Amino acid sequence: MMSSIALVIPDRDLTPLVAALQQRLPGVSIQQWPEIKQPERVEFAVVWKQPAGSLKGFPALKAIQSYGAGVDSILRDPHLPAVPLSRIVDPKLAAAMIDYLDTVVAMYRLRLDLFAQQQRLGQWRPKGRRKLKQLCVLGLGELGKAVATHFAAAGFQVQGWARTPKAWTDVTTYSGEEGFAAAAADADLVICLLPLTAATEGYLNAQRLAQLKPGAILINVARGAIVDDRALLAALDQEQLAAACLDVFQQEPLPAEHPFWQHPKVTVTPHISAVTNIETAADQIAENYRRSQAVQPLLHPVVLEQGY
Amino acid sequence: MMSSIALVIPDRDLTPLVAALQQRLPGVSIQQWPEIKQPERVEFAVVWKQPAGSLKGFPALKAIQSYGAGVDSILRDPHLPAVPLSRIVDPKLAAAMIDYLDTVVAMYRLRLDLFAQQQRLGQWRPKGRRKLKQLCVLGLGELGKAVATHFAAAGFQVQGWARTPKAWTDVTTYSGEEGFAAAAADADLVICLLPLTAATEGYLNAQRLAQLKPGAILINVARGAIVDDRALLAALDQEQLAAACLDVFQQEPLPAEHPFWQHPKVTVTPHISAVTNIETAADQIAENYRRSQAVQPLLHPVVLEQGY
Repeated sequence: MMSSIALVIPDRDLTPLVAALQQRLPGVSIQQWPEIKQPERVEFAVVWKQPAGSLKGFPALKAIQSYGAGVDSILRDPHLPAVPLSRIVDPKLAAAMIDYLDTVVAMYRLRLDLFAQQQRLGQWRPKGRRKLKQLCVLGLGELGKAVATHFAAAGFQVQGWARTPKAWTDVTTYSGEEGFAAAAADADLVICLLPLTAATEGYLNAQRLAQLKPGAILINVARGAIVDDRALLAALDQEQLAAACLDVFQQEPLPAEHPFWQHPKVTVTPHISAVTNIETAADQIAENYRRSQAVQPLLHPVVLEQGY
Repeated sequence: MMSSIALVIPDRDLTPLVAALQQRLPGVSIQQWPEIKQPERVEFAVVWKQPAGSLKGFPALKAIQSYGAGVDSILRDPHLPAVPLSRIVDPKLAAAMIDYLDTVVAMYRLRLDLFAQQQRLGQWRPKGRRKLKQLCVLGLGELGKAVATHFAAAGFQVQGWARTPKAWTDVTTYSGEEGFAAAAADADLVICLLPLTAATEGYLNAQRLAQLKPGAILINVARGAIVDDRALLAALDQEQLAAACLDVFQQEPLPAEHPFWQHPKVTVTPHISAVTNIETAADQIAENYRRSQAVQPLLHPVVLEQGY
């Protein structure tokens, strides 16, 4: 009996992904959740924000592949089968993320955020560029390292921070609780690229936001739940932070009544900073499918104890 | 009797300019309009948006120096003395202009304009990057050439247009009325850097805006009077243009009741794209003062018949 791949990716048009996979894996059957007609044949599942328990019914499952760089939405499932888990590591994802961050940083340097506020009020108040020199990257995974390296090359003074020490020296890095203040206290810009784990949930709370430089700008492109929303709003209202650009939220889509929408110092973008490139993802999914069939180690495995 | 320099630059704090000039021209007296105590001693005038006739009372005037790259606000004066006129050509001005344009183009590519509109309405509608490939630069003076060269090097397909043919081949250039359509009709982005002269006033009218590619974006960083405001608003409302970013206006500050302020497709910035650098300006002013005293040709002379 031929094995089959299940795509458990709710609320998304999967036509392009199915086509890209069929091109790479001719003859392999691809079933799309919730229309799984032969669950007993599923040996490989590509997963993103699956409903809890939806992978339980695949008795022959050999491996789970996240359809993104993160796996937090997958690990949340209490009924996750105990098989190897891998994720997409897309160099183009880093390029897209850097493009987003370059644009947002340039926007803040030119004060387009301020001029947009003034435009709404009909105010003409010329002001020169913001001086943005020091930049802190929180999280030194694949994306964090690429972003830190990029901004250092662009002339920023870059400090990196991760929860645990990193053997990586391209920029100055810090770790742990004392390290946070050392890395972030003088930064004009703080870019959050932490993985969402039990240890980072709510990490940017009132106490840590208070350790940032007054007038700093926070950019969160990681996961919404890393930031304490109420603490962030308070920090903006008290002018501890000058502005925040948020691409990720505790609940997505961001609920209509959430105060971020109308806050004059918050820029909301609808999780568009870096979207998985279908071609790159299909290459890695096809390769990991072949490896799982050949009982070989997967590309980009996730260490469950770390959560990334 | 020692000669004197008059600064005829209303509504601006000139302290930094006076200091920079005194450093370069020790012993030369500098008089600030309207407190000109010895008009008969004024041999050199630094001028920006002077009241009409304000230069008439300087019988010994040898030269007029614009305090900016443009001279349109100076030439408007019917009582302008018939002496050589020069302007500032600041390489840092081009760098600042390119920085502004880079930021605005990146902002449009990422659709931050659209997401800002959606944010005001509480709408979550992810959308990928705008494809912006072809770019037209209107006006091929110092700034226009620098901008065209920059975007060509950045990978854009760049067409340049000027009213009269240019012997400049770094990018494909067109001129005249038929040339306008050839240069602009396929452009995703149209950047206006034309000088304001009798020939360019109102140049971007309904007829010419209708020749642009539907969905094009207009960026005006030259002079407000080159654009017909009502025609631009109509083109935006009819979706002939997708958006406009305006840094310059027929009247500045932009009057509180002007429809540009509240138009969802217009980005207003308060004439901050490229501001004269005081050090560079002071160098050129001091040099032209010395040349005018020595009866030598001025740096960066303005050809009055052309208006730039």
